[in-house]
Amino acid sequence: MTTGGQAYLGPAGTFTEAALVAYLEQSGRRADSELLPMASVADVLDAVRDGSAEGAMVALENSVEGSVPATLDELAFGAPLMIRRELNLSVSFDLLARAETDLTAVRTVASHPHAEGQCRKWLRANLPDAHWMPAASNAEAARLVGEGRYDAALAGSAVADVYDLKILASDVHDVSGSQTRFVYVTKPAPPPPMTGTDKTSLVLVLGQDHPGALLEILTEFAVRGVNLTRIESRPTGGAIGDYFFSIDVEGHVDEARVGEALIGLHRICADVRFLGSYPRVDGQAPSLRRGVSDAEYSEAQAWLARVRDGRA
Amino acid sequence: MTTGGQAYLGPAGTFTEAALVAYLEQSGRRADSELLPMASVADVLDAVRDGSAEGAMVALENSVEGSVPATLDELAFGAPLMIRRELNLSVSFDLLARAETDLTAVRTVASHPHAEGQCRKWLRANLPDAHWMPAASNAEAARLVGEGRYDAALAGSAVADVYDLKILASDVHDVSGSQTRFVYVTKPAPPPPMTGTDKTSLVLVLGQDHPGALLEILTEFAVRGVNLTRIESRPTGGAIGDYFFSIDVEGHVDEARVGEALIGLHRICADVRFLGSYPRVDGQAPSLRRGVSDAEYSEAQAWLARVRDGRA
Amino acid sequence: MTTGGQAYLGPAGTFTEAALVAYLEQSGRRADSELLPMASVADVLDAVRDGSAEGAMVALENSVEGSVPATLDELAFGAPLMIRRELNLSVSFDLLARAETDLTAVRTVASHPHAEGQCRKWLRANLPDAHWMPAASNAEAARLVGEGRYDAALAGSAVADVYDLKILASDVHDVSGSQTRFVYVTKPAPPPPMTGTDKTSLVLVLGQDHPGALLEILTEFAVRGVNLTRIESRPTGGAIGDYFFSIDVEGHVDEARVGEALIGLHRICADVRFLGSYPRVDGQAPSLRRGVSDAEYSEAQAWLARVRDGRA
Amino acid sequence: MTTGGQAYLGPAGTFTEAALVAYLEQSGRRADSELLPMASVADVLDAVRDGSAEGAMVALENSVEGSVPATLDELAFGAPLMIRRELNLSVSFDLLARAETDLTAVRTVASHPHAEGQCRKWLRANLPDAHWMPAASNAEAARLVGEGRYDAALAGSAVADVYDLKILASDVHDVSGSQTRFVYVTKPAPPPPMTGTDKTSLVLVLGQDHPGALLEILTEFAVRGVNLTRIESRPTGGAIGDYFFSIDVEGHVDEARVGEALIGLHRICADVRFLGSYPRVDGQAPSLRRGVSDAEYSEAQAWLARVRDGRA
Repeated sequence: MTTGGQAYLGPAGTFTEAALVAYLEQSGRRADSELLPMASVADVLDAVRDGSAEGAMVALENSVEGSVPATLDELAFGAPLMIRRELNLSVSFDLLARAETDLTAVRTVASHPHAEGQCRKWLRANLPDAHWMPAASNAEAARLVGEGRYDAALAGSAVADVYDLKILASDVHDVSGSQTRFVYVTKPAPPPPMTGTDKTSLVLVLGQDHPGALLEILTEFAVRGVNLTRIESRPTGGAIGDYFFSIDVEGHVDEARVGEALIGLHRICADVRFLGSYPRVDGQAPSLRRGVSDAEYSEAQAWLARVRDGRA
Repeated sequence: MTTGGQAYLGPAGTFTEAALVAYLEQSGRRADSELLPMASVADVLDAVRDGSAEGAMVALENSVEGSVPATLDELAFGAPLMIRRELNLSVSFDLLARAETDLTAVRTVASHPHAEGQCRKWLRANLPDAHWMPAASNAEAARLVGEGRYDAALAGSAVADVYDLKILASDVHDVSGSQTRFVYVTKPAPPPPMTGTDKTSLVLVLGQDHPGALLEILTEFAVRGVNLTRIESRPTGGAIGDYFFSIDVEGHVDEARVGEALIGLHRICADVRFLGSYPRVDGQAPSLRRGVSDAEYSEAQAWLARVRDGRA
Repeated sequence: MTTGGQAYLGPAGTFTEAALVAYLEQSGRRADSELLPMASVADVLDAVRDGSAEGAMVALENSVEGSVPATLDELAFGAPLMIRRELNLSVSFDLLARAETDLTAVRTVASHPHAEGQCRKWLRANLPDAHWMPAASNAEAARLVGEGRYDAALAGSAVADVYDLKILASDVHDVSGSQTRFVYVTKPAPPPPMTGTDKTSLVLVLGQDHPGALLEILTEFAVRGVNLTRIESRPTGGAIGDYFFSIDVEGHVDEARVGEALIGLHRICADVRFLGSYPRVDGQAPSLRRGVSDAEYSEAQAWLARVRDGRA
Repeated sequence: MTTGGQAYLGPAGTFTEAALVAYLEQSGRRADSELLPMASVADVLDAVRDGSAEGAMVALENSVEGSVPATLDELAFGAPLMIRRELNLSVSFDLLARAETDLTAVRTVASHPHAEGQCRKWLRANLPDAHWMPAASNAEAARLVGEGRYDAALAGSAVADVYDLKILASDVHDVSGSQTRFVYVTKPAPPPPMTGTDKTSLVLVLGQDHPGALLEILTEFAVRGVNLTRIESRPTGGAIGDYFFSIDVEGHVDEARVGEALIGLHRICADVRFLGSYPRVDGQAPSLRRGVSDAEYSEAQAWLARVRDGRA
C-alpha cells in the first residue's frame, strides 16, 4: 500500500530532502512514500493543502542564517496546517565542481543565498576574484554547474552524486556546527500525544497597535510558567511597524498551563493560530516553577469547585 | 417562626447594631430575629461558628480610621466563615451627657479609640482641659456616662435614648462624611447569585518570603483583568515581616476571570481562603478591559477544545 | 551639657520608654537627656515638630497586633519628620496587682487594647469571669490599678515598681517571642551614612485611583531590584477605597538603585514622602540581583555618557 | 570640495541608490558626493569602517518582505557604526524587457528574491509558464536582461533607462503601497540633536539564557514609558535558540527616559550596542504617559537631591 506523496523544496539533493528521508525512515514509511520535489515553499505547502501530498518537510530556521521567512509567512496565513514533528540537521558545505575543473579555474560560484552567507569568509580567502551567483536552492546550483552554466556550487556533499560532480573543497563553511531545523507538516489533525518534552508553535497577530502589546503577550505566558524557545516578528504586509509573531513554547497544548495561556492569548490577540504540539527533538524537559504542573492545576480546580459550592 | 439569633458587638446602641437592624429589615427578617450583643469581635464570630447565632454583623473598615484588625484577623484564621452582604453606614458623632451636665462642667470624655481619633480636633478646640478615657465601644462609654462614671461620651445620637442621655453638642467629628463598612457573615454556604456588580473577599498567605511575592500575586489578578478594591497587610503573628493579605476584588467567584485568578493564587500561595462573593453595596459595575468577560472566556475555551481536537 | 528633651508615649513604665532609654544609652546620651512622657502619639510627634523635644521614640508595628495606625498616620501627614533609627523590643506581659490581691479576687483587668489581644486566651482560661477594661497604655492601666480603680493590669514587669505593684502571674501572653518595632524620629536632616545594611521608609499617595496603580508602584521597585520589607495600606480619610501606602524597603537613599526607584515613584505618584534611611537593626544584608549594585550603576552611567558623546 | 564617497548596494539603478541620492539631495551634498556601488551589504558597511566611504545607505526592512537579515547582522557585530538618518521609499515593480520582446515571448523572469515574493501572484496569473531566476539585486537582473541572458526582469522603472530596457508591464506587485525603510550610517559620532520626534536603534544580547529574559528587557522600557516600534530576533550564530534582538524605540538618547532605560539594559544584558538616535521620517510624536517627560524627570531629580540633603 502506498501512502500519499511527501512534498519538499526540490530539486533532488537538498538538505530538506535529506530531512524528509530521515523522518520517513524513522517512522517506517520510507518504502511507501513518493517524494515530491517542488519549486518553492509556497508550492510545497499548497500541495498539502490541496491534498496532492500527504505531508511536507520545510526548513524553519538555521542557527546561522536565522528563520526562513517564506516558511513562517506561508504557515501563518492561508488554510491552516499543523506541525507534527521537528528535526535538526547539521549543515555543512562543500565546493562542488565538474570533474575537469580545478580551483584556479573557478570564476563563478552558485548557491542559495543562505549558503553564501555561511561560506562568505572562505570564499573571500580562497576565491577572492570569483563571482557569486544566486540560485533557488543549493541543489539547483549544483544542477546548473552540471549543465556547465556555472563553475562551482556550494552544497552538501550528497548532491555531488546526483549531478555527477566532484568535491573540489570540503567543509568550506565559516562556522562549523551550523544546524537547520526542519518541521514536518500535515493538514490539521489531533496533535501527537504528550510526551512530557514537547513544544507548541503559534502565530499571534496583535490587535490594535498599542505600546506594551508584546509585553502583555509575554506576561500571558510568564504568569502560567510557559517558557518561550523562539520568537520572531514578521511584517503582516501592511504598513511598516505592523507585525505578527511566530513563537515556539515549551509544553503541549493538552497541558493545563499551555491551554490556559492559549485561552489568554485568544482573548487579547486579534488572531491566534495554533501550529501544532510535537515532541522536542532534543528531548529537553521543561523546568517548571512551582504551581504550574498538571497535578497542581487539577488540585486548584478541585478546590475552586468546592469554593463555588460553598464547601471551602 | 423564629430564625437563629443575630450576633453583633454590643452593647445595644452601637453602629454595628444599627447596621444589623438595617440589614434584617431590608431582608424582611427583622421580626423573626433575636439580636445577640457580644463583648468582642471574637465572641461575635465564635457565636456563628458554634451555631449559637445564625449570622453576625461586624465592622470591617472605616474611611477615617482604617481597617478593623480584630475583624480581619478573626476572619482569616479559625473555622471558615463567609461574607454574604456588605453595608456602608455614615458615621457621625455627638457629645452625649446626663441632663444636668453643661459643656463647662465636662472634665472626662469617654469613647472607643476610633471615635477619639475622629473627634480629636473638636475636643482640643472645645474641651482643651478634659481628659479622654477609652471604652470598649462608644455605646459602652455612654452607658458609663449614664452611671455617672464619666461626664460625657462620643457616640451616635441613637445611643442617647438607650442610656437616657441628652445631646450636648452635635456633629463633633472633624471630618464629615465618614463611613464604616460592615459585613454580614454566616457559616460557609454557596455564595449569593452573581448580580454583575459583585465583590469577592480573600485572604492570601504568601509561601516562602521572597521579594516580589506581592508583585506576583497582583500580576495573577491583573493578567485576568480583576481589579482590587482593598488590600491590607496583616502580621501572621510570627516574626516581624511575616504578613498575610486581606483583599477585596471586583467580580463574583462564578465569573470565569475571577475563578481563573483564584486557581492561579491557589497554585502559588501557601494558603488562599475564600471569604465570599456578594453584591456591591454601591452597585458600581466593574470596568472590564477587552478579553475578560464571561462571553469572551467561553468563546476562547470553545476554540481551545477545537484546537485540541485538531479542528483549529 | 543637656541636649533637648526626648518625647515618648507615657506615662513612665511603657515599653516605648524602655525603647527610648535603650537607644539613649546605646548612643551615650542617656545622662544628658530629659524624658518627656506625652499623652498621645500625636502629642509626641508634635513635640518634635514644634521644637519642644529634640527627638521622639514611637512604636511602629508589633509582630502580633500589626501596625500602629496612629504612628503611620501622624508620620504620613503634617510637617515632615525623619526616622533615624529602628529598634526591636521583645514584648512580654505579666499580670500586675496590688500587694493584697490574689488571683481569685480579680474582677477587672485593664490594659491597652493591643495587650488584650495578645493575652486573650490566657484571660479566658484563667480569669473567665473577669471584665477587661481598656486604658490608653498599659502603664496607665497599672497606674489605675495602683489607685485602686481596677484589680489588675496587663503590662511589662518593669511597670510593677513604678506603681508599687506585684507580679500576680508571669508571661500571660498567648504567643511568646512577640516583638514591637520602634523608631526614633527627629526633624528632617541628612540621613545617617550608608552602612550597607539599611532600610528606607516611604509614604506613597496614589494619584487618580486606577486599577493597577499598586502593581505599577511595585514594578518601580522590582525593576531596580529594591525589595520591600513592609507594606501597609491606610485610608487617606476620604472615601472608602482611597488609600496611601506606608512602605519600608531594603537599601539607603544614597544608593543608586534606591534613588532611581524614588525618582520613578515621584514621577508617577500624587505624593511621595521620604521618611528616612537608617541602619537595619537586624544587620541583614540585602540580596542584590545582578545589575543593581552601585558599582554596576556607575559603570552603566559612564557607558551612557560615552554613548551620548558618540564614543560608544 | 568633495566629501568622501557614499557606499550602497549596487549596481546602479537599485532602490538603495535612489534612497541615497534622495538623502544627499535633501542635505545639499549631492554634487560633492561620489556614489560607490558595492557587491554586498558587508562590503558596503566595511567601506565605511575602513574609511573608503564617508557614509552608506542600506535597506533595513520592507513592509512586505520583512527585515533585511544581512543589514541587521552586519550592524550588530564588527566595528561599531551609527545610524544618522532613516528614509522610507515606496517600492513598486515593473516588468522590464528589451525593446523587441513582447509578453508572450517571456520564458524567464529574473529578480532579487524579495521582488519575486512581492510579485508572485501577478506572475502566476500572467506568466504561468515562465521560470523565475534569482539575481543578487533587481538592477543586476535588469543588467542581465540587457545582455540577453534572461527575457525580463522585475525592477523599479528607474532601472529601465540605465540598461536600455522598456517597461513591458507596470505595477506588477501584488500589494500596492509596499515600503522599504533605509538608514544612512557613518562611523560613531555624537548623534544628531534631539528634535522631539526621534527614534533610537539598539542591539541587545541577552546574557545567560533564562526564561523571561525578554520580558525583563521589555519591562525596562515599559517602566520608563519608552515605546518599541520594531523588534527582531536574530540568531547569534551559536546554537539554535541563541538570539540577539534588534530594536527601535521612540525617543532620543539625550532624553532622560531613554537614557535611564539604556542604563537599565546595560546593567542586565550581556551586551548593549547603541546604533544611533535620529529624527523619525514620519515626524510622529511619541505619546508620553504621565511622569516620563524630561521636565518631570528634572523635577524628580531635584526632589531627590533635596531628600538626600535632608531638606525634603
